[in-house]
This record gives sequence, C-alpha cells and structure tokens, in this order.
Amino acid sequence: MIAMLCSYPRCLDHSKSFGSHCYRNYFTVLGLFCVYFLHTIFASSQYFSLLVPIRSYSSSVPLTAETYADKVQRNQAYKKLDEGDLAYFQSILEPNQIISNNEDDLAFYNEDWMRKYRGQSKLLLKPKTTEQVSEILKYCNSNKLAVVPQGGNTGLVGGSIPVFDEIILSLSSLNKIRSFDNVSGIFKCDAGVILETADQYLAEQGYIFPLDLGAKGSCHVGGVVATNAGGLRLIRYGSLHGTVLGLEVVLADGTIVNSLDSLRKDNTGYDLKQLFIGSEGSLGVITGVSILCPARPQAVNVAVLAVDSYESVQKVFNDARKELSEILSAFEFMDETSQILVSKYLKLDHPIESDSYPFYILIETSGSNKEHDDEKLETFLGNAMENGIVLDGIIAQDETQLRSLWNWRENIPEASQMQGGVYKYDVSIPLKDLYGLVEAANEKLEAAGLVDFEDISKPVVKAVGYGHIGDGNLHLNVAVRKYSKEVEKVLEPFVYEWIQSKKGSISAEHGLGFQKKNYIQYSKSPVEIALIKDIKHHYDPNGILNPYKYV
Amino acid sequence: MIAMLCSYPRCLDHSKSFGSHCYRNYFTVLGLFCVYFLHTIFASSQYFSLLVPIRSYSSSVPLTAETYADKVQRNQAYKKLDEGDLAYFQSILEPNQIISNNEDDLAFYNEDWMRKYRGQSKLLLKPKTTEQVSEILKYCNSNKLAVVPQGGNTGLVGGSIPVFDEIILSLSSLNKIRSFDNVSGIFKCDAGVILETADQYLAEQGYIFPLDLGAKGSCHVGGVVATNAGGLRLIRYGSLHGTVLGLEVVLADGTIVNSLDSLRKDNTGYDLKQLFIGSEGSLGVITGVSILCPARPQAVNVAVLAVDSYESVQKVFNDARKELSEILSAFEFMDETSQILVSKYLKLDHPIESDSYPFYILIETSGSNKEHDDEKLETFLGNAMENGIVLDGIIAQDETQLRSLWNWRENIPEASQMQGGVYKYDVSIPLKDLYGLVEAANEKLEAAGLVDFEDISKPVVKAVGYGHIGDGNLHLNVAVRKYSKEVEKVLEPFVYEWIQSKKGSISAEHGLGFQKKNYIQYSKSPVEIALIKDIKHHYDPNGILNPYKYV
Repeated sequence: MIAMLCSYPRCLDHSKSFGSHCYRNYFTVLGLFCVYFLHTIFASSQYFSLLVPIRSYSSSVPLTAETYADKVQRNQAYKKLDEGDLAYFQSILEPNQIISNNEDDLAFYNEDWMRKYRGQSKLLLKPKTTEQVSEILKYCNSNKLAVVPQGGNTGLVGGSIPVFDEIILSLSSLNKIRSFDNVSGIFKCDAGVILETADQYLAEQGYIFPLDLGAKGSCHVGGVVATNAGGLRLIRYGSLHGTVLGLEVVLADGTIVNSLDSLRKDNTGYDLKQLFIGSEGSLGVITGVSILCPARPQAVNVAVLAVDSYESVQKVFNDARKELSEILSAFEFMDETSQILVSKYLKLDHPIESDSYPFYILIETSGSNKEHDDEKLETFLGNAMENGIVLDGIIAQDETQLRSLWNWRENIPEASQMQGGVYKYDVSIPLKDLYGLVEAANEKLEAAGLVDFEDISKPVVKAVGYGHIGDGNLHLNVAVRKYSKEVEKVLEPFVYEWIQSKKGSISAEHGLGFQKKNYIQYSKSPVEIALIKDIKHHYDPNGILNPYKYV
Repeated sequence: MIAMLCSYPRCLDHSKSFGSHCYRNYFTVLGLFCVYFLHTIFASSQYFSLLVPIRSYSSSVPLTAETYADKVQRNQAYKKLDEGDLAYFQSILEPNQIISNNEDDLAFYNEDWMRKYRGQSKLLLKPKTTEQVSEILKYCNSNKLAVVPQGGNTGLVGGSIPVFDEIILSLSSLNKIRSFDNVSGIFKCDAGVILETADQYLAEQGYIFPLDLGAKGSCHVGGVVATNAGGLRLIRYGSLHGTVLGLEVVLADGTIVNSLDSLRKDNTGYDLKQLFIGSEGSLGVITGVSILCPARPQAVNVAVLAVDSYESVQKVFNDARKELSEILSAFEFMDETSQILVSKYLKLDHPIESDSYPFYILIETSGSNKEHDDEKLETFLGNAMENGIVLDGIIAQDETQLRSLWNWRENIPEASQMQGGVYKYDVSIPLKDLYGLVEAANEKLEAAGLVDFEDISKPVVKAVGYGHIGDGNLHLNVAVRKYSKEVEKVLEPFVYEWIQSKKGSISAEHGLGFQKKNYIQYSKSPVEIALIKDIKHHYDPNGILNPYKYV
C-alpha cells in the first residue's frame, strides 16, 4: 500500500532491484540500496516545531481538578498562598523572577505539553541560584506550601504541572554551563540548561551529550535527569544511572546536597544521587548535573529495513547486536499501520515504496570511521538479505536524508493522534512478548466492535506499536477518532494487567507523574512500593514536593 | 635500563627500527611493531595463582582487634553468640552449611586476601537460598547478633572480614545461574556465582560480563556489585550503576526485596537497588543480580606504548578517545619505576627493550571486525608516532602475547610489595592532577630522607603510580622494605589531604571497608556524610550489618 504512493523514480528503480530478491553480491549492497530523496520540509528545526507546537494560551484544556475530581482532591494540610508568602518571595527574588496572579502569563506553566492537564497555580518562581532554590524550599517546607518543580515542561504524564494551587518552581533561569573538561569529557551545568544547548556546546568540543530525544529543543538537562529519560540512543550510551557522575540537589527542607565532583569512579559512601535520578521532583530539586560525555561520532549511518514478522524484527536485532556491536547507536521498530499513518500525516510516500510490509526497522550506526562503518553495515545487511530475513531497505546518503528517515519514526506520535486523539502507553516488556501487547489490544478492541481503520463510525482507528526495541521499550499508541469512556474501559486495566502478566513495566521512560500514580502496583511488589513510600516520607515528611503524583 | 634486559633478537630488531624515529609510512606500523614473544609461563591460570596465592592458615596475620586496639573496640550492644543461637541456626540449615568453633576451618574466612586483617568469628553460615538468608538476618536482627556478609573474600580494604566476633554470612553456596536471555543479553544469577564462571557461561552464548578484574577467578558477582567494583573495562562498558538492571536484596530485618525483573528501562518509582550497589554489605545482603551483558567482541588488540611525560599520557588518551572511540576497551598507564619493579619480579626483559621511558601506556581495543580494528589502531599509532608523542611501542600478535602484555600492567601490585611491603592507595583525581600525587608522595618521602631505590638502609624503595587513567583512577603504591610508623606518618594524612585539595576521591573502586572508615571526610562533605549515616540508620537501625566499617 505504501509503495503505491512513491513518486521518486530514482528510489523506485533501485529499491525494486533491492527488494525483489535478485540480490547477488552483498559487498555492493550500499550501492544497491535506494538513494533516498525527500523534500527538506522536515529538516530538524521544522521537525521540532511540529513536535512542540506554538500554543495559544486559552483555557480550552480542562482543569485537572475537574477532570479527575473523582480521583483526587486538594489536600487541606497544605497552606493556601497569601500576601505574606508573596511578600517573602518578593524579598528574596527580583521582580522578573516572579509571576503571580496573572492567568495569561501563568497559562504556559499551568498546562502540559499534551494539553491534557491544567493546574491552577497562582505563583511561579524562577530562582537564578541554588541558594535561592534552597531559601524557597526552606520557606515552603516550614509553611507547608506545596511546590511543583518544573523544567522544560515537555513531559507526557502530567508530572511537571500543578494539580491544584501548588507553587511552580521553574528551573528555567538556572541555566548556565558550569564547566567542561575536554580530557575526561565531564560536563557540568545548571539544571535549567536546555538539552540542545548542552549538546551544541559539546559538539563544538567534539563531544556528544549521552542522551537524545525529540523534545531536546525545549527540555532541560535537569528535567531529563529528574525523569530518568531514556531516549533514542540508550542502546549505545546507556542509562543516566551510569552516565550521571554527580548532582547538586536541594532537599525539601532547603538542605543543599552538593555532589557535583568530576569523578568517574567514587566508592566513598552510598551513591545517594541515584535516588534523585527518576524521582520526578518528588524527593528533592535537582539544580546541577555532572555527566560523562563520549566523543562525538565522526560517521553516522541510518537505514530503514522491511521485514515480514515480529520474529524477524527480533532476529535482525540479535544479529545487529553481534555484527554491528560497537557501532550500533539506535535500533527502532515500527509496525505497518504506524507507517501508513505517518504517510498520511506527512502527505509523503514511504521511503520503501516497493511494497507494504508488516514491520519496519530503523538502524543507526555511529562510529569513528565512515568507511569501516559502511562496510560493516553493508556486510550485515547483505547477510540479512541473503538469509531472506530483511525483505527491502534503504540507507540515507546524506544528513538531510538521514533526518528524513528518522522522521518516519519520530512522527508516529503526531500521526497517531491526527484523527482525533490517542491513548498512549510507554511500557517495557521482555522482548519476545513485546509486540504481543499491540496484538492483544487490537483483538480486545475488535472483540468489543470498537475498531475499524476506515469506518469513521467506530471510535478506534487502530492500536499501533513502535519504539526502542533495543531497550525492550514499546510505545503502544491507540489511535482514536474521539476519546470515550467505552474505549478506556476496554483498554484499562487490561493493558496494565497484560504488562504485569509478562513482568513488564507500565512506565519504561515517561515516568509515573500524575497519570500513573495509581498504577504502580502493576509493576512493583507491595514490598517495593512500601520502600518507595518510606523513602518519600523520609526525605519529604511534609509532602510538599510534587504532591498528588508518583506514588 | 629496561631495554638492556632484552634477549629476544626478533623483537629487538623490529623495535629498534620502530623506536629510533626512522619511521616512514604509518600505514605499515603494524608490520613494524615488534612481534612479541614471551614464555608462556604467565599464561592466565598461573597468572591468577600469582595473584591469589594458596594460603597456609596459620595465625601469622595479626588480629585486627589488637592491631587497631586504639581505634576500635567491640560494641557491647551486640550479643555474644551462645549455644541457643547455634541451635537455632542448626534448626534451619544443614550441617554442611555451618562451620562453628573450628579455628582452622574458619581461618580462611577470618583473614583477608592481603593478610592484613584477621577477625575472630566463631561461626560461619552458608545459606543456599534467599529465604535462608532472610531467616538468618531476621534472627540476628531480633537478637542483635552482628553479621559480616562475605563473597569471594578478595577485597583490599578489609570489608568482608569480621573485626571481632561477627557471624560470617558466606554467599558461596548461593551460586546458581538463574537465567540468560540471548536476545536482550540479560543475565540473572545468584550472588555467589564466581565472576569467571559467569563470564565463561556468557562466552558460550557469545556475550561478555560487562566487568573484568584480576580476582575474577575468586570474586563473586554479588560481591562485585556490593563493592561497586570498577575493573579493567569500565571505560568501555560503564559503571555497574548503569549495567545492573535488578537486584534481589535481603534487608537487615529479613525483608526480601525482589527487584530482579529483566527490563532495561523501568521508570516506576525510585531506583532503590542503586543504594545497595557499593554499600559493601552495610545496608542489606545482595542475593541475586540481573545485569545487561554486551555481545562478546570478536577482535581484541593490545598495545604497549612508551611516552616521555605524563602530559603525553593525557594527550595519547585524548586522541585515543576520539580516534579509537567505540573500540577502545582499556587505557592503562604505568610509570617507569613500576615497570622496573615488574621486570625484577618477573625476571624478564620489558617488551619495549630499546630504552627506558618515563611512562608506558597499555591500550586495548575490542571490536566486531579485526581488520577494521587493526587499521584504526595502525592509523592512530602512526599519527601518534609521526607527531612524536609516542616514542616506542609494541602490539600483541596472538592471545598469549596479549596476556603477556597485560601481565606488565597486572603484576605491578605483586611487584610493588616484593621487597618487603607496600602502602596502597586507590584514588580518583581529575586527570590533569592525577600523577601529581605520585610526585608529591616521592618528594615528601625524599624530604624526610626515607626513600632510596638502591640503598637498603632506607625504608622506602619508591612510590610508583599506575592505573585506569581512562577512568581517572590512580593506584599509588608505595613500595617499602618494611612497614614503619615513620613512613606512615609521612604518608598520612598527607595523601588524603592532597586528594582532598584536588577534589578527588580517597576510594575510586576498592571501597571504604575497615581501612578507610575514618577518612570519608576527605572525599565527602559533612552534609553528604550525615545523609549516608542517616540512610544506614534508616535501613539497619540495630547496626547488625558489617559493623565497624564503611562510615
């Protein structure tokens, strides 16, 4: 189906010879691979604007307090902000560090990126120093004023948005790069530095930030750490638990914990900073980050491949881990429907236009020697073609094409909701069972008579699956024509129960936030949940940090 | 000086042309590099027996309680073991899981590897299941019986040895491999599995344990995690905080925390397992480990290079990070004296025999394609030679030579103490200052008139430096002819103060244990120490786990 949309003759010719099994010499696969040309309309800057649309700050987003009135109510133990509090904050901050009582100015900070949650905060504070963060928290803790720490506000689970009238503590003015050591690769910055700014700075030094994600133009380094973001290259550079070397954190009572030392190894005492990585602002506020950055790869290749089954996806992954090994920097998969939706959304033909296939794989390699990487990829793909596992494929020939191929993966979230809305689940499942959740969700929706790809009288278009298969991380997007309780009832708790039955996680990389606060029991045992609640109470006995969320 | 010892004509000829700056075409460096032949006497099995000598279990090791009587006394809050306790343990364990009151049988477990510490435990328990560990700890906690968890007993800081009469809880019988997923690379095992056993199992599946160290023939996987060991390839595979995916831990009160799920990403709740990585048995007992293993490299190269200064060591490291990038798996440095000592110890000529140089570098590359790796290394070394940074060098041509080259790095600890003894410091220091500690120590010892390499009337031979420079990790070994209070007074607290002044860590990878319990303030702030003590008290209020150590 996708192939019929193709209008690039050069691409068509090559991919036909590549896809039609007349392949003879795998040493020339690169030459046979389709040279890929898409309009530059989706070059990176525009791409990000697609993902982070300019928002009109109307009140069209329903208030969280009203939408979820049956689930959450304001905790009356928290003090309501008064003039005295405001006077205190005015005494320690400059006027431009405070936004209060102006609904329009506060709207951006009260609403989430997905326009799903809206809080009612009347006060936003923008500290410029760690000491100011400390003074603010000390005051709030003493006075039982609830606080929401907020970074770039790009989260997907309502974690950085107030639920009621919590004070918003924005880290956006704490935004200086502190240091970089170009021998050790250790980078230190304030929490509010934007990820893309950090990466651009590092690029100039020949280094790379060891994490990348779609929202990098807006999200903060501190927010990325606070939510333990995973992103696109975890398979290569590993988790933040391994790469973050130190943190500066302010505890609920205002205590500043400075563990920002630049050491790759330090076995003196418990590694307490780890608790704050992924704590979503519920244990303390991260104000500074020290992180180990690898040398920037000098050669990057991207290929998109077509296979006929989920088993083949796993097989290709297994082979890629062995054969591409040290140069493999991303391994993503997308199912057929996800690509059909992106094709409609982009109004473009799919890069593999010769036919439509059940599954597509995006492979990225990053290395220090272009010639070597090309040869490795060529050999790998040649073997995969010869074995009949990979049925068709395409390799980007330049930076623009590389970006364009990534677009077919990265635009799935937008494409999934273009027909009305989308129910999103970000889950970890052991690899062999991973795609089973998508099939199970579709079967369940079909059994309930709710799904049809064409029939607009049905609420559900289809459940699609894609994600970071190299990390066992599935994004299940249920594309719908409208949100409805009927659909929700079919999906939940079914999806969570299914994940639990496979010993998976209901949050792989997006976090718990407000959305999943009541579902942690599907991924953690009662003992684990008790320990988590115990630590929360231990560090934040008044519960002032990011209430109504997490656990 | 080293070069004069050489007796391998083939090696001599080649290295002369290589080392004498008549080098013309860097594309042929591999050919010019000396083909390295050492007798196979130091092949791996014998090598490990050198590191882990068979011990006679006499009482020649002084009792810790006597040696350090001025620093530590038995805490009378702990109950003394009685017949009732023994009867309880006999009721839950088989006879072969208990050693009690037999000094000879207990000697191995009461003494440390370095024969520096000796405890007086009268009871050793070897649980075979996690439930047995739980029952033991529950009983000990209720009865305030102190416990030392013990793995392979290969630590260097007295962490796994009782100080007084603590019960030894050996994990050696909890030693089953639980599972391996050859798609995801996730390996699960009991804590008592020996590291080498785990790695050999993984090798058969085409995978590698993401950590390697000299004691791998004896140390346990659980012990490696409990001490957050670093080892030889941290530069490539990263820290255990990134690679360990899950732990099964028994808390002091016997609570079993099972977080062994096989997920690379899981953002549901605080990552509590991290607290136990590097806690040295003071917070809980690790009984199971889930860890992500990379594909085993199909090609490994090892080269030893000679340079004229520590600045050149840093320069070569910086270039190697950029040019060898993804295939760099070890970057070690050794100073001149360390190599002279190894040469005496091994009674062999140094592999680079053309001359003696101030510093040597060992580079290991691991990749998926031998030809590519050879070419990268060749180009890299060619550039380094042409720029005059690397003055001489040698590349292993086969597995035996590779092992032999590693021996010149790995035998430094043994060689340092062959003249009588050694004061060992394992420290992290920002790279630019790292070797300064060795120079400062030698200056201090010289000023005190205590050091002479030849004059046997002086107590100190010399301070030598080597280590994992890729990780900013220096091993400072002060080789002495005898231990003396005079030398100790010159070295301490001088060494710790020097490290503190450079914002380094007094323990990079060996841990605190008993040895450094009183020195943590040189690396951690009062706020950090207070938080560490607070967590210890929170999880182990009776202090039964590994007392008299850590903090």
